[in-house]
Amino acid sequence: MVNADLKVSLTGIKPTGEPHLGNFIGAIKPALELADGAESIYFIADYHALTSVRDPELLARWTRSVAATWLAAGLDPERTIFYRQSDVPEIFELHWVLSCFSAKGLMNRAHAYKAARDRNREAGVEDLDAGVNMGLFNYPVLMAVDILIMEADLVPVGKDQLQHVEYAADIAGAFNAVYGDSFRLKIPKAVVPTEDSGRTLPGTDGRKMSKSYGNTIPLFAPEAEIRKIVRRIPTDSTPVEAPKNPDASSVFQLLTHFASPDRTADVRARLEAGGMGWGDLKNELYAVLSEELGPMRARYDELMQPGSELEELLAIGAAKARKRAHPVLEQVRKAVGIG
Amino acid sequence: MVNADLKVSLTGIKPTGEPHLGNFIGAIKPALELADGAESIYFIADYHALTSVRDPELLARWTRSVAATWLAAGLDPERTIFYRQSDVPEIFELHWVLSCFSAKGLMNRAHAYKAARDRNREAGVEDLDAGVNMGLFNYPVLMAVDILIMEADLVPVGKDQLQHVEYAADIAGAFNAVYGDSFRLKIPKAVVPTEDSGRTLPGTDGRKMSKSYGNTIPLFAPEAEIRKIVRRIPTDSTPVEAPKNPDASSVFQLLTHFASPDRTADVRARLEAGGMGWGDLKNELYAVLSEELGPMRARYDELMQPGSELEELLAIGAAKARKRAHPVLEQVRKAVGIG
Repeated sequence: MVNADLKVSLTGIKPTGEPHLGNFIGAIKPALELADGAESIYFIADYHALTSVRDPELLARWTRSVAATWLAAGLDPERTIFYRQSDVPEIFELHWVLSCFSAKGLMNRAHAYKAARDRNREAGVEDLDAGVNMGLFNYPVLMAVDILIMEADLVPVGKDQLQHVEYAADIAGAFNAVYGDSFRLKIPKAVVPTEDSGRTLPGTDGRKMSKSYGNTIPLFAPEAEIRKIVRRIPTDSTPVEAPKNPDASSVFQLLTHFASPDRTADVRARLEAGGMGWGDLKNELYAVLSEELGPMRARYDELMQPGSELEELLAIGAAKARKRAHPVLEQVRKAVGIG
Repeated sequence: MVNADLKVSLTGIKPTGEPHLGNFIGAIKPALELADGAESIYFIADYHALTSVRDPELLARWTRSVAATWLAAGLDPERTIFYRQSDVPEIFELHWVLSCFSAKGLMNRAHAYKAARDRNREAGVEDLDAGVNMGLFNYPVLMAVDILIMEADLVPVGKDQLQHVEYAADIAGAFNAVYGDSFRLKIPKAVVPTEDSGRTLPGTDGRKMSKSYGNTIPLFAPEAEIRKIVRRIPTDSTPVEAPKNPDASSVFQLLTHFASPDRTADVRARLEAGGMGWGDLKNELYAVLSEELGPMRARYDELMQPGSELEELLAIGAAKARKRAHPVLEQVRKAVGIG
């Protein structure tokens, strides 16, 4: 599916909470691995978060926190383009232009909007649009603009995000059908990872780790807090000396994502042989998390300090992003007869 | 209704065709008279027109033409702020922000959107959203932003536009309810002229002059074209020498809007006395139009020349408009926790 000519990939990150281990394994690591191939663009979709986050301090903190997380996790701001959506005003002007080429029918069928209506229906609310704001309804158009203004070839997405890339292609096609002789928007392609399952972490209750389940382990909380959360993961009452099935344990599952293969194999053997209790396993997980995430956390804490180089790095990223976005917007303006 | 403290008025002009006499009497003249009282802001809503105008040359021409018309009609770019919407990028970023505070239910009930659905219903189209783009659906939010970003106190509107100002007030209220402690958007008030009727011109077929009826007389077409259009206005077969009822004649109605009171009274007397034919009346109308609109047309033609001062005047207006818009956007960004 991936064409040899295709090369610019784009990843959006919505700052709607403090990053947790599930984000790191499921989204951050795989996205950073991509950077080794294509020319990579990453952005923090702070204005997307505004559809739901109404606390200015939280929005500002989560935006900084997400930026610091990705940089600490190894995002190289020199080799990539890394910016805040809100630092690129061209996006919002193009949003208006492309909304004129986005069929309302498409938005009626968008997953997030339909989910909001379903929630109203289930709650017995007569007006299915109750509580729906135009930010939520316009969301797929803004997503399309995020992709199209950067002329991205590839957009790595989970299956649930596939629709956004399809909409972006559809909207670009509608624009090109009218103005294609003077300017064409690049049609993006979605890249859906084939093996999603290996990147799903169990949360503290055994279900998939997710903010909406309230079962997350923070990526960069103080060590004492992480230790406490790990200790509280429920386990069964198998005695220390009894053999245990590692594959039935969410603590072990978590360990496998962070420990080296040798260390994982060693712990597996000790559990299966008996003599290793759940408390020992939790200590092991905690130690692995400390070792693996320690240096990253130090860098994160540094970037989160007021006056760190975080703002400067984002400013450099914004300048690079605008350099890409500006000519696209200018050509669109010219094509439609504006200015 | 008008409060002594209120002072900034805002008028938007959508460039969807060449200006005609009906626009001049019904919209341009009354709007320019307003400028004598309040601090006046006028803008050309070129990006609004994009919801329906898909020909780049037409959109560019109509935008220039509307700008030149208002300047020729006496808009003083020194005493007012006069700009193209598309020259103020702050508008589009604020459009995103305020879409997050605009209930979708409001848009469902917007006149223009409902009219589009009604047209589909009447045409037997099953999908009532067929042909509706998100520009049309978002239109009231952009209108609200046009008003709110300029912190306008007063918005002179026809009755059919009243909803837009109500929506702007509603959206500003929703924003203020969340962030009012840090920043409040100014709530605008609509001003609906009490005597609309005196400003309605008959078109060449006797119905209200309107682009949609195809019965317009252009404001600035070449004189020969205007003469031809006036000649073709249908009249009855009353002989020249017979007395005529001026008030039943749309040619006379047109005359009253452009001739001096003395001249109007003189023509009325001649018609009522008999001896003045419809052809004479048409010559009189044509002469009056030439005299009254001639100097204005000369200025219009001058401004429409490539390389005229039109672009410079619009650039000056854009700078003034951005100077007003920028601090509003900055305070909104700060209030919501962006950047």
